[in-house]
This record gives sequence, C-alpha cells and structure tokens, in this order.
Amino acid sequence: MTEASTNVVWHTGHVTAGNRETLLGQRGCVVWFTGLSGSGKSTIATALEAALIADGRATYLLDGDNIRHGLNGDLGFTREERVENIRRISEVATLFADAGLITLTAFISPYRTDRQAARNKVPKGRFIEVFVDVPLEVCESRDPKQLYARARAGEIENFTGISAPYEPPVSPELVLPAAEISVEDCVNRAKAYLLEQGFCTAGP
Amino acid sequence: MTEASTNVVWHTGHVTAGNRETLLGQRGCVVWFTGLSGSGKSTIATALEAALIADGRATYLLDGDNIRHGLNGDLGFTREERVENIRRISEVATLFADAGLITLTAFISPYRTDRQAARNKVPKGRFIEVFVDVPLEVCESRDPKQLYARARAGEIENFTGISAPYEPPVSPELVLPAAEISVEDCVNRAKAYLLEQGFCTAGP
Repeated sequence: MTEASTNVVWHTGHVTAGNRETLLGQRGCVVWFTGLSGSGKSTIATALEAALIADGRATYLLDGDNIRHGLNGDLGFTREERVENIRRISEVATLFADAGLITLTAFISPYRTDRQAARNKVPKGRFIEVFVDVPLEVCESRDPKQLYARARAGEIENFTGISAPYEPPVSPELVLPAAEISVEDCVNRAKAYLLEQGFCTAGP
Repeated sequence: MTEASTNVVWHTGHVTAGNRETLLGQRGCVVWFTGLSGSGKSTIATALEAALIADGRATYLLDGDNIRHGLNGDLGFTREERVENIRRISEVATLFADAGLITLTAFISPYRTDRQAARNKVPKGRFIEVFVDVPLEVCESRDPKQLYARARAGEIENFTGISAPYEPPVSPELVLPAAEISVEDCVNRAKAYLLEQGFCTAGP
C-alpha cells in the first residue's frame, strides 16, 4: 500500500458517525441541562466544558450566549417561540453529537414535551438529561440579574417559576442538587456519569 | 502540582475557541461549496470529508441530508425561505467552526447576498468560498435525478439555472472546474488550500 492509498476511503461514500468517533476516541452525546433561572445550569455546564477540555475531550457548549444572539435571534418568548427555540437547539445538538462531540446544552427548557421531543431526536442512549435541582426560593434569593424581582414586579412576562410553569424531569439521567453541593462536585458527578456510560475515558 | 490541579481551568470561566483548536491541532473554518445542482458539490464535499478524516482531522459536513430534514425541515423554497435556510446554515456552520472543526457546507446557495451574509458571520479569514464551476449545459446533461427535465417541463418552480438565477461568486477563495478535473483532483486542491492557509497540517 502506498501512502496515498489511505485516501481510498474517499470512494466509499459518506463518512459515518462511527468513523468520527474512532478518530476522536469518544462517543458523541447530548448532555441536556435543565433547571430554573439562577439554578446554576450555565455555571456547571461551563465548568464541565472546561474540565472535559482539560481531559482532552472534544466538547462544545450551546447556551444563550451563542444561540439566542445567532441562530435563534429571530425568536421571542411566547409558548410557540419557546417550542421553536428548543426544537432548533435540539436539532443543532444532534448534529454536534453526530459529529462525535460531547455536546452540552444549558437552557431552562421548562416543558417536558419539549425536552422529550429533544430526546427523541438524539440516537437512543445518547441523550443525558441533567436536572439542576435547586428550589425556587434559593434561585430567587440569588437573583444576580434581578430577573425574579422584575418578574414579581410584572416587568417580565412569562417568567419561568413566577408567571410560567417549570415542569421538573420525571426520569432524568442525573440530578444535581446544586444548592447543597459545590460546582466542582456537580462537575465530578457529571464526568463520572460520562465515564461510566462509556462516552469518554478518563483524562491524562 | 497534583493530578487534580489540571482542572484548575474550571475556575477561569469559558473555554475559548483557541483552547479547542489547541486540543484538536487545527483551526476551525467554514468551507462553503456553492454551485448549480448537478455540479458535484456534494460529491466533492463528501470526498473531502473522507480525505480529511483519513488524515485525522475533525471535520463535519452540513448538507441537504442532515439539514433539510432536520433543522430546516419547516422551510420551503420561496425566496424568503431560501434566505432563512442559508441564514440558519451559516449560523450552525459558524458554531461548528467555533468548536474548532473544519466545517464543510454543500448547498446551491445561488444568491451572492446570502453567501456574503454567511461570510460576514464567520470570523475574518475563516470563510472559504469554493465555487464548483460547471457549465449549466453539463449539469443539465448529467441530471441524475431528472430535476432539470422536470424543471424544463414546468413541474418544479424556482429551479436554479432554469427558472431562478444562479449568481456566480465574484471573488471565491477557490474555483474547482469539476467538469474538467476529477473529484480526486478537486479534493486535492481543496486540501492543498487548507494546508497552505494553516487550517490543518498534512495527514499521517
């Protein structure tokens, strides 16, 4: 075999998700964080992203910062727009998982039906629902952006937990009681889950 | 330093695109193929994807197969819907490039303004417009799916090249005369460009 013959794979058509996973040495998945505003979803997901990168894992975080101003910049917060928001996020997360990445999403995603629809798009066993379980009163007492205060004052409509429902997961793969344990402990539990389930191996 | 101290990066906040690129050993970019139906965009992009994977590069192809049935399954082919189609694709491609991947897109994308809008979203120097330049009469003579025949018969409306315009790129980064050179040659030219521009190194 000549050097060039390694390129013979060209002619066999589409690269598969399995080819990409072999290359990256991990299995693509979607780690879907859900929880109230102020529960710590983004903080934990950001810390998990950093921990995975430190371990040499290909990972990417979809959150409000990179989705709400870009792909979903045309969407507001009505029930219909929230459905479309989560639908697009789940489609993009599915593409990232197909690319072989450990894909993290951090959105309130308050409705069970929307999260179930997201789960249904991802290949079976690759969707990891992580409930960041912090009581409303704790989230409200933190209120770093004064969102709860503004919602209570009627300045923000349809605010989850105040004037719109939050439906907790029924059977999440992981529950993180982030009011009781540290961000570091939350990250370690999530990493342990990914290792146990064979999505990646331990870091260097 | 203890083993655990490698995780100290947690506390420094968001992982950057640079961190991800260092990990993957390449620079994220968007290789945007454009050309008429039947020009060979998808065939070349698929072969390039396979060649990059064979070289150990993290890459992902966005094309009709994984976009039109998923994220953009709600869009038709009016001018407005075509704009939104390309807008969403460019947003997703930008996320993939931000994740550090060599991101390939293969869509007709007939309008200059839409491709320019896509280019404007991607960080400067990271958007590589590849014009698959094949004359209409060659594309029409191939017509594997009988789309041109149906468009000529009036059975498909707004068909690019027949009843809707195709605006060739003015200053594409790369032109592939795919009627005159082989798919393998097209792939080699694209790979050479990526190497020259420092998006990745040569394969094993």
